[in-house]
Amino acid sequence: MSNELTAAVLLIGNELLSGSIQDCNLQHIAKTLETRGIRIMESRTVLDIQTEIVTSLNALRSRYDYVFTTGGIGPTHDDITSEAVAAALGVKLTIHNKLDKQLGDYLSNKGVEYNKETRKMAHTPEGAELIQSSHSIIPCYRIENVFVLAGIPSIMQFMLDDCLPYLASGAPVLSKEVHANVREGQIAAALTEIQTQYPQVDIGSYPQETNSNRSDYHVIFVVRGTEEKTIDQVCRLIYEACDNDGYAAKMI
Amino acid sequence: MSNELTAAVLLIGNELLSGSIQDCNLQHIAKTLETRGIRIMESRTVLDIQTEIVTSLNALRSRYDYVFTTGGIGPTHDDITSEAVAAALGVKLTIHNKLDKQLGDYLSNKGVEYNKETRKMAHTPEGAELIQSSHSIIPCYRIENVFVLAGIPSIMQFMLDDCLPYLASGAPVLSKEVHANVREGQIAAALTEIQTQYPQVDIGSYPQETNSNRSDYHVIFVVRGTEEKTIDQVCRLIYEACDNDGYAAKMI
Repeated sequence: MSNELTAAVLLIGNELLSGSIQDCNLQHIAKTLETRGIRIMESRTVLDIQTEIVTSLNALRSRYDYVFTTGGIGPTHDDITSEAVAAALGVKLTIHNKLDKQLGDYLSNKGVEYNKETRKMAHTPEGAELIQSSHSIIPCYRIENVFVLAGIPSIMQFMLDDCLPYLASGAPVLSKEVHANVREGQIAAALTEIQTQYPQVDIGSYPQETNSNRSDYHVIFVVRGTEEKTIDQVCRLIYEACDNDGYAAKMI
Repeated sequence: MSNELTAAVLLIGNELLSGSIQDCNLQHIAKTLETRGIRIMESRTVLDIQTEIVTSLNALRSRYDYVFTTGGIGPTHDDITSEAVAAALGVKLTIHNKLDKQLGDYLSNKGVEYNKETRKMAHTPEGAELIQSSHSIIPCYRIENVFVLAGIPSIMQFMLDDCLPYLASGAPVLSKEVHANVREGQIAAALTEIQTQYPQVDIGSYPQETNSNRSDYHVIFVVRGTEEKTIDQVCRLIYEACDNDGYAAKMI
């Protein structure tokens, strides 16, 4: 799967590393970007500590086409993402006049005081471009190849949709599956041979939990790539390798 | 929360970055280790590519007391964790005689051929110490401060329990919550003041989804630390800050 556009995800928040919240943003971002031919190459989860965010963001943004951050853009003391993004990019964190007015007007209309803490949310790294949303009063923003999104999944998902027009797109990644009642070890040699023969696809082999709700079969083989015909060929070969050995299998 | 033992989690597998599988191992490891006073400081998710695993593992193992890897220890071509761990530590990947016999005997008793591919699972980095399990025929292992675990959650969880006797322990991390119908911005100044006054606890502020199944209130404040009395004091202060401003709140 060469010539793909690449991305990384930086999940920010103590709550993700203490186990108090289960992240589900990575999976959603990955699924969404694959339809655009953008492949997530790496993800990191870091604490709400500026140096941690800066170090990881700089490592990721220099290496991949895009970086998506989630979390830490609210008004409380532990929301430090915009400050850290500014520090990582070596720019100032400044009030964004348009966002400031937008947020101030919104709260005034609700009869809520627009105080210093809430106004923190109107600050962005200098040079940031707002990505307006019809679903959230706070837009996400882009600066260079970094997209800064909320942590709350429903808001993050809207924001990601808003980002899509700003992204280049490659050939969508497609995937098909073969499910089989085979021991992985019995099929491993055949799989290796098929993978070697078809390096343009990515074959994964995933044994299932006994009570898996994903399949009644023991193992799921996932074949991913950008050429549907090749994926079909490879699935057929895996199916036949299982079937020839007498294992029940089906193609999905 | 100083003097804590620290750890990192390295989640290995293409399936986690393609969105085809939702990781839930990080949360389980975090929750389990916190009861032992070990705090997860960082997590990375990487592809099944040796240089990626090696680079991340070396960054993490030099920085934290423990590293836990998940995934990539099966018999198929995409299971490369043990090879990568050996490369990261600069040791050979060798057949582990005890594990080899254990695995061979187990499969023979089941009438399954113990082939070259399955035997890959009997290889460990030189110097690895097996951590036997009563729940899995394949044990996890430790080498230096790195613990190598399965990716399948039910097996990973048993393996993690098996690792616990090998870990030092610190003061367990405790947490309590205050739930309140407050806008984060309205309480942010008070929160900052409380956090500054009690640096030994970690106060997080998490707005909830509209249909959150975790609380009927708009925001959850989580107070974490090792001193129960201080946590209670801080929760009381947060509760009063909400209550004084006329917001419905409750301590959990």
